[in-house]
Amino acid sequence: MTRPNRVWRLAKRPIGEIAPGDLVLSEEAAPTPGAGQILVRNLYLSLDPTNRIWMSDRDQYMPPVEIGQVMRGGTIGVVEQSNNPAYTPGEIVQPFLSGWQDYTVADGAQKLPVTKDLPPLAFMSALGMTGATAYFGLLDIGKPQPGETVVVSAAAGAVGMIVGQIAKIKGCRVVGIAGSDEKCRWVVKDLGFDACINYRSENVEAALKRECPKGIDVNFENVGGDILDAVLANLNLNARIALCGLISTYNAKEPVPGPYRFDALLMRRALIKGFIIIDYFPRMGEFMAEMGPWVASGRIKWKVDVVDGLENAVTALDKLFTGGNTGKLVVRIAPEP
Amino acid sequence: MTRPNRVWRLAKRPIGEIAPGDLVLSEEAAPTPGAGQILVRNLYLSLDPTNRIWMSDRDQYMPPVEIGQVMRGGTIGVVEQSNNPAYTPGEIVQPFLSGWQDYTVADGAQKLPVTKDLPPLAFMSALGMTGATAYFGLLDIGKPQPGETVVVSAAAGAVGMIVGQIAKIKGCRVVGIAGSDEKCRWVVKDLGFDACINYRSENVEAALKRECPKGIDVNFENVGGDILDAVLANLNLNARIALCGLISTYNAKEPVPGPYRFDALLMRRALIKGFIIIDYFPRMGEFMAEMGPWVASGRIKWKVDVVDGLENAVTALDKLFTGGNTGKLVVRIAPEP
Repeated sequence: MTRPNRVWRLAKRPIGEIAPGDLVLSEEAAPTPGAGQILVRNLYLSLDPTNRIWMSDRDQYMPPVEIGQVMRGGTIGVVEQSNNPAYTPGEIVQPFLSGWQDYTVADGAQKLPVTKDLPPLAFMSALGMTGATAYFGLLDIGKPQPGETVVVSAAAGAVGMIVGQIAKIKGCRVVGIAGSDEKCRWVVKDLGFDACINYRSENVEAALKRECPKGIDVNFENVGGDILDAVLANLNLNARIALCGLISTYNAKEPVPGPYRFDALLMRRALIKGFIIIDYFPRMGEFMAEMGPWVASGRIKWKVDVVDGLENAVTALDKLFTGGNTGKLVVRIAPEP
Repeated sequence: MTRPNRVWRLAKRPIGEIAPGDLVLSEEAAPTPGAGQILVRNLYLSLDPTNRIWMSDRDQYMPPVEIGQVMRGGTIGVVEQSNNPAYTPGEIVQPFLSGWQDYTVADGAQKLPVTKDLPPLAFMSALGMTGATAYFGLLDIGKPQPGETVVVSAAAGAVGMIVGQIAKIKGCRVVGIAGSDEKCRWVVKDLGFDACINYRSENVEAALKRECPKGIDVNFENVGGDILDAVLANLNLNARIALCGLISTYNAKEPVPGPYRFDALLMRRALIKGFIIIDYFPRMGEFMAEMGPWVASGRIKWKVDVVDGLENAVTALDKLFTGGNTGKLVVRIAPEP
């Protein structure tokens, strides 16, 4: 039996924004699992800013996707066929390394403890890589203390929405920065942020001064550029910046300078630390033990922006760079069984 | 008895480089110590890049010097008169806060354990604020491990020369960056650095790649600008940057952007932390206990560039910004008794 497998391959490296033809969708035969391997039928594909980084050959934290290779991406799927006694067909799993395609062959995959309160999509969001990114970046680098002020950029995004809620649990004043009044309303009304600044309609530096009357102690940074400069201008002594992303620069064609207020790091004796969730994989148990109950009980809320159809993955990815999504951006490859 | 006191006061805030008339030297009557106070006759004045920061009203880590005030600066002096039973005339002391003048009145001062092996100038250098800056910045933020590579900018300066020697004691490969072949020769031949790059005659990024074949694990940063960019381009995963100074920007008239390779902090999961020695004052005992014997035994060497005459303080300060000094820059106000 030959299964058709739709596959997105990187045809050429994008220059600036992704252009038609940079990635190409083709129909191929699904791979066959070898001894000890499993075949996973993918249900959901995670779309993340880092996908854009992997398409380029710039300096980065993992090897880039090579020309001709399947586009790398996180998926959740169902075990379709198993040559490994540890896996049973029908189980919902997350392959360790997957791609933009219908089927993934893998040596192993993370089994997901799906329940009524924790549907598969929770593991693409609050309990997935983006949730863990929020959790470890905020707690391990930001080290928020009760009464401190935490500022989160891309506040209505996959990571930001979780960062703010954890910071609230930790007793902080939480100020988000997002790209629309609707996003701002959502993080304040539904997620419990104390305030949110629409960077498209307000001067962010002035608004931060207003919303952070005691200054900024912790910044969870997803954006960089002007947004980071506005944060640096309001930094408290001994502030901590968890540097998670610099999405404002990922489509740049020319070298982008660092923030103009870089010297604030010196003057405010601040710390900034870049991090990548893969460094925290050994501690994922810790994350699941604390976040699982928060999510299952509804104390931490999450939202997914689901785009239907693997064929729409490339156009959907663009939403991350234009602010088109609210919550975690996901492609539904196939309906849940 | 009225003692004449020469005093440098800030007349106006420099714009860019210090211009004639920004600081004014006048002869006044020395202040009289009140009850419990001491009068210190200053012998040496410490000149530091931070002096330039204090002259401006930019965001900084201490209040700026106000117009009309005595220029702030560290001194070492001799107790001339004491209304405090804890101090005896003739003792060599370091006032907690002093200025560019012949006499300082103070409530108290650090007594300096001067010996034959530890002359007063040692306490302006390896055992003074610049030595402590090197010690805590390198060890507390840089956390160098044996076998790691440490890069020090302004390597032949007051702080850099000490940083490199401590890093050698810690078993690291040490690469300096300095502004002349003579400075480079000195830190390699006399101080034991493994290599030194003359930034005026070499491409620093390429030279760092050559001299740091295993990449850079720790950077002690005094300069910023292009030098920092060259370091960022050669950073290892999980590198640490102790951000001590950004002297390349202190005379700037326009906002200076941060490093173009700012994103290396994210991609290499690096840490950067600004610091100021005053935060480490509670731990100065620790510093003296370890550095004292290193300095007394000659294991850590130090050099001072002594400029004679308080009247030359302003022109001497300029050496820091043009690379004119090697080692710690000091003004001799009066001969040692």
